[in-house]
Amino acid sequence: MSDQVKLKAAILGASGYTGAETVRLLRAHPHVEAVAATGHSLAGKQLSQIFPHLAGPTDLLVVKAGDVDWSQIDVAFSCLPHGTSQDLIETLPDHVKVVDLSADYRLRDADLYAETYGRDHLNPARTAAVKYGLPEWRGTSLTGETLVACPGCYPTATLLALLPLMQGAIDPEHIIIDAKSGVSGAGRGLKEGNLFSEAAEGTHPYGIGTHRHAPEIEQELNLQAGRSDIGVTFTPHLLPMVRGELITAHVRGDVGQIQTALETQYADAPFVTVLPLGSSPPDTKHVRGTNNCRIAVYPDRVKGRVVVIAVIDNLVKGSSGQAIQNLNLMMGWDETLGLDHLQAVFP
Amino acid sequence: MSDQVKLKAAILGASGYTGAETVRLLRAHPHVEAVAATGHSLAGKQLSQIFPHLAGPTDLLVVKAGDVDWSQIDVAFSCLPHGTSQDLIETLPDHVKVVDLSADYRLRDADLYAETYGRDHLNPARTAAVKYGLPEWRGTSLTGETLVACPGCYPTATLLALLPLMQGAIDPEHIIIDAKSGVSGAGRGLKEGNLFSEAAEGTHPYGIGTHRHAPEIEQELNLQAGRSDIGVTFTPHLLPMVRGELITAHVRGDVGQIQTALETQYADAPFVTVLPLGSSPPDTKHVRGTNNCRIAVYPDRVKGRVVVIAVIDNLVKGSSGQAIQNLNLMMGWDETLGLDHLQAVFP
Amino acid sequence: MSDQVKLKAAILGASGYTGAETVRLLRAHPHVEAVAATGHSLAGKQLSQIFPHLAGPTDLLVVKAGDVDWSQIDVAFSCLPHGTSQDLIETLPDHVKVVDLSADYRLRDADLYAETYGRDHLNPARTAAVKYGLPEWRGTSLTGETLVACPGCYPTATLLALLPLMQGAIDPEHIIIDAKSGVSGAGRGLKEGNLFSEAAEGTHPYGIGTHRHAPEIEQELNLQAGRSDIGVTFTPHLLPMVRGELITAHVRGDVGQIQTALETQYADAPFVTVLPLGSSPPDTKHVRGTNNCRIAVYPDRVKGRVVVIAVIDNLVKGSSGQAIQNLNLMMGWDETLGLDHLQAVFP
Amino acid sequence: MSDQVKLKAAILGASGYTGAETVRLLRAHPHVEAVAATGHSLAGKQLSQIFPHLAGPTDLLVVKAGDVDWSQIDVAFSCLPHGTSQDLIETLPDHVKVVDLSADYRLRDADLYAETYGRDHLNPARTAAVKYGLPEWRGTSLTGETLVACPGCYPTATLLALLPLMQGAIDPEHIIIDAKSGVSGAGRGLKEGNLFSEAAEGTHPYGIGTHRHAPEIEQELNLQAGRSDIGVTFTPHLLPMVRGELITAHVRGDVGQIQTALETQYADAPFVTVLPLGSSPPDTKHVRGTNNCRIAVYPDRVKGRVVVIAVIDNLVKGSSGQAIQNLNLMMGWDETLGLDHLQAVFP
Repeated sequence: MSDQVKLKAAILGASGYTGAETVRLLRAHPHVEAVAATGHSLAGKQLSQIFPHLAGPTDLLVVKAGDVDWSQIDVAFSCLPHGTSQDLIETLPDHVKVVDLSADYRLRDADLYAETYGRDHLNPARTAAVKYGLPEWRGTSLTGETLVACPGCYPTATLLALLPLMQGAIDPEHIIIDAKSGVSGAGRGLKEGNLFSEAAEGTHPYGIGTHRHAPEIEQELNLQAGRSDIGVTFTPHLLPMVRGELITAHVRGDVGQIQTALETQYADAPFVTVLPLGSSPPDTKHVRGTNNCRIAVYPDRVKGRVVVIAVIDNLVKGSSGQAIQNLNLMMGWDETLGLDHLQAVFP
Repeated sequence: MSDQVKLKAAILGASGYTGAETVRLLRAHPHVEAVAATGHSLAGKQLSQIFPHLAGPTDLLVVKAGDVDWSQIDVAFSCLPHGTSQDLIETLPDHVKVVDLSADYRLRDADLYAETYGRDHLNPARTAAVKYGLPEWRGTSLTGETLVACPGCYPTATLLALLPLMQGAIDPEHIIIDAKSGVSGAGRGLKEGNLFSEAAEGTHPYGIGTHRHAPEIEQELNLQAGRSDIGVTFTPHLLPMVRGELITAHVRGDVGQIQTALETQYADAPFVTVLPLGSSPPDTKHVRGTNNCRIAVYPDRVKGRVVVIAVIDNLVKGSSGQAIQNLNLMMGWDETLGLDHLQAVFP
Repeated sequence: MSDQVKLKAAILGASGYTGAETVRLLRAHPHVEAVAATGHSLAGKQLSQIFPHLAGPTDLLVVKAGDVDWSQIDVAFSCLPHGTSQDLIETLPDHVKVVDLSADYRLRDADLYAETYGRDHLNPARTAAVKYGLPEWRGTSLTGETLVACPGCYPTATLLALLPLMQGAIDPEHIIIDAKSGVSGAGRGLKEGNLFSEAAEGTHPYGIGTHRHAPEIEQELNLQAGRSDIGVTFTPHLLPMVRGELITAHVRGDVGQIQTALETQYADAPFVTVLPLGSSPPDTKHVRGTNNCRIAVYPDRVKGRVVVIAVIDNLVKGSSGQAIQNLNLMMGWDETLGLDHLQAVFP
Repeated sequence: MSDQVKLKAAILGASGYTGAETVRLLRAHPHVEAVAATGHSLAGKQLSQIFPHLAGPTDLLVVKAGDVDWSQIDVAFSCLPHGTSQDLIETLPDHVKVVDLSADYRLRDADLYAETYGRDHLNPARTAAVKYGLPEWRGTSLTGETLVACPGCYPTATLLALLPLMQGAIDPEHIIIDAKSGVSGAGRGLKEGNLFSEAAEGTHPYGIGTHRHAPEIEQELNLQAGRSDIGVTFTPHLLPMVRGELITAHVRGDVGQIQTALETQYADAPFVTVLPLGSSPPDTKHVRGTNNCRIAVYPDRVKGRVVVIAVIDNLVKGSSGQAIQNLNLMMGWDETLGLDHLQAVFP
């Protein structure tokens, strides 16, 4: 595919972190170019006024979504908040493919969506049918799709670690996910708790027993296990770092069997690495700035218990990078396009 | 007690963080003064050359332990590494009371000590008899003791949260402790992983299934439950912050019963606060620089599962502050002496 | 003075960082107790709901300033923004002593105030007469004052370092102040630039040539030099840390003479330490959480140039601690009351 | 140039941060591949054991320099400490081109080298002749060179900002450079001051008047000005961040003239951006992970004084990225090869 026929992309909600990250990553994509950026309160500004690191020849003017000439757009990345996202997506013309980074089409059950997100879904039939875009699991089945829902950041790391184990490698009655995230996962919204002065040099859990990513994780685990009754403990913590997400899954099973299931599953996955048994533990910094996920398995001191660790960069594999990976698959391209040059920024 | 008869304290291993913190805290103690500081490679320096924040009129010269005039010393705080600590403690004259911040006298079973710490204990009989100084649980029983072993930082937070639950409030077969610590917990030793460039902006677990604090936690939980078979999962993580420790205990039981057991236990404890049900989660920063522990209880989304959170400052309640609290009790003083003025440094 | 007759203090603007810090520090003051806390949007909440670290028996209900029974108040600490501060202070009954932490009464010249802060001053005569409360320089002259203006954080560090040099030790035509501050100096206001995700792991200057603390610095330097034409370069930078302020003053003069002038000036100052020539450089962390200022002098490689460094904790010596020091002097008390127990939290 | 004839590179001192960064960056270079990595104490390990983020198909075994088959090597990047670097470089066979990231060939005057670095230079004639590789200033004159000395990180940012001003835009008698660097600039050496616990949440200056980068800066400024008497004040500070370097140059001149000189100089420079007058200040985070330098000019409040700001990533433009840029020029290639895909990792 030559440059002349690059896909034209609109970034919806470009003034948030996932929007900016999508713009950044697309600059290196050989077949896609961002040509439109939308925002609400910041419409009228250049994107580089909001995010100086994006200054350069391909700077974009932020416009209201209603001012985009959709006839010129091939694909939209929706980086909008849930709710707002479906409100816009449902109005887009049919020819626009959509990669939705919000939570709006992740849950198949519109009732569960309403219960979890506090509003009715505009299009229950559509959300029931939309593919859940965890690329390592949907793969080429995404080719030709017109709307794909990107998993949440926590579900991405969690499901990559646990989905391969749902055919019997672990006991689904005993799944405890203790999760840790950098502050960028909370987005660019202005809250005291996200101020440097408050988030630095401390940590706390949040959303214990109530986090919205838990139903999403359960949906996919049940689907994979062919069950509907699996419930998981999911306890996220806010850490004083910008990027990075680590999940610690406390499970029951056999270490060797778990390791084999993971290695087998991801033998050919370009972005998922299963570390050999006995490796030193993965650090979020080893994947920072990349679309990679690293997984490692450890025996616990209590017989029969196993600890599975997974790390990702929440803004790349947990969000914008995975969105591009999904678009690649929707278009029938190599899933690594525009992503394989990323290398971890360490230290 | 007037100033003239202040207890004279020696700080063994004053060139580490717990040594420096003990010196700092003792400066505000009405009945104790640090008069000697020992070190090995740094002997001959003023303490303020090693730790400029300790400059002042009560600055101390660091000397080798062999050069201390023990006849002038009433109490020794051992901030030495395990092994080195017992080697010195066992040589001290009988009149010197000892508060040991190392791991050397925490485990009652010398075989377990040898297995855990990789060397034989010099004095198995003594370690079997030494009081484990978790002051909220030993209280006035410490009065008159000549050697008290201070709990590790992780065990302190963990046991404060779980000991009250071992009489039936939780199922001892299902205890999973996911722990998070700031980097100061690793001490002042020079390792690449503790460099700012490597520890900042990332997180990783360590010692999965093998951390030395697990046997210590199990010892005390079993003792309290009147059992010997309780095993716990203990998975610590290194966080990019200096001070602070948070433990997330995933347990099974009834939220109300657990809350009641904790509130009852600590109704009169000056340094332990059990937050009301429904509180926003405790943050390590809320106790930074203090001898306080905050505990909170949350229902999980899976019926029957409960999450108990505890936060401490690892260098104060998890180490030097608790050591002073123990000395207070050994001396028959109010346990809050020299500690009750500490207030959390926030933000 | 016994507890029965403790001074009753109101904290105006208690929902900001300097308000919270004043509450925190007053808890250790033997002669003052905070009995009222005011706020606007957060009125009706307990202070501990806003700042959990302040939970405890002396928790306060935040009320609107109009709802305070001023007849019960002896002293008000105004932690309000400039403008808002004078609007309230000018309405307080005469018996209420005021320590103003805002910028409202720092500039003697109401025209300069209007130019600098963009609004007219309500009481030009009063601001012209109010004592500028740099305690090391005003000392007992503050006794009996009813309103004292606390210096800004940057001016505090800068003036402590430079005022002693204005009698000839340095050339007033060549003063360049390159300043560095932690993010808490920006307060609790919600701005993208103060989010953890944006302030962490980076640094930038701000307010180059336009920062409001420059006229304040110039006012005091000129006053001390008996001149009116001294102008200074003042270039502040935001650093990825919470607390701490460091000023690097590039001046011209003789190292020995500068050192002597500083040592002489602060020989008896309880909170200012002039390090010996040749000392390793002061770090903001050496004074964190304290009311201390450390100053050090270094010869530059260019003959005749000298570098003077000063470090403070912007929230203590640069704000709430200094305010209490000022109150102590206003009351004729020892200036160290309630402040001398503070020790640097290191690491 | 096809893949078959890729230049074969050896990384000398691959176990440090600049070594690792060079390996990382070369992975994206179309015409060069790293085929050897040397180390001393870590020889025998895979590079990925030292730096897990470098794991992958092109992992390298670290060997001692004496064990490299130099006949297979086209170019060596020396990431060794000064001294060690020349000791090895002087033994390399003639066909090996060398890009030296150490300080060993930066100073033309061997006497100044000896005075600054405390040892005699092995090859005074060579260091006098070696090109100082600031690519924006040496450009195609580097083509065909066999040894190029890469500037230090501070000099890179400083010289990019000041060299264009040495033809009269500023007064060379009044140059003050106040510099700020992240901790990675100190390398991977084990020192207490670089521990997370000590470097986090604080800042301090260092090497005041004595830093080794000052003579290097002076050498190039004098050369450009056609003088030999220009001296500069250079005061670096350690900041609690990993990557990033910001220099604040306090100079005297006319803002418009300075801005024009910079814009003219860098109109076609691919990696240097001069921000328009009035821009919000550059942040190190805007260039993190890239080979970019951003420069901005601000009028000071004191007439005739100007503040020039420059930001770089010390490990890329300040080190490994610039080294690759130099190699590109030595080989007669486009200087952006392998570097133009890098985009700032923000937030």
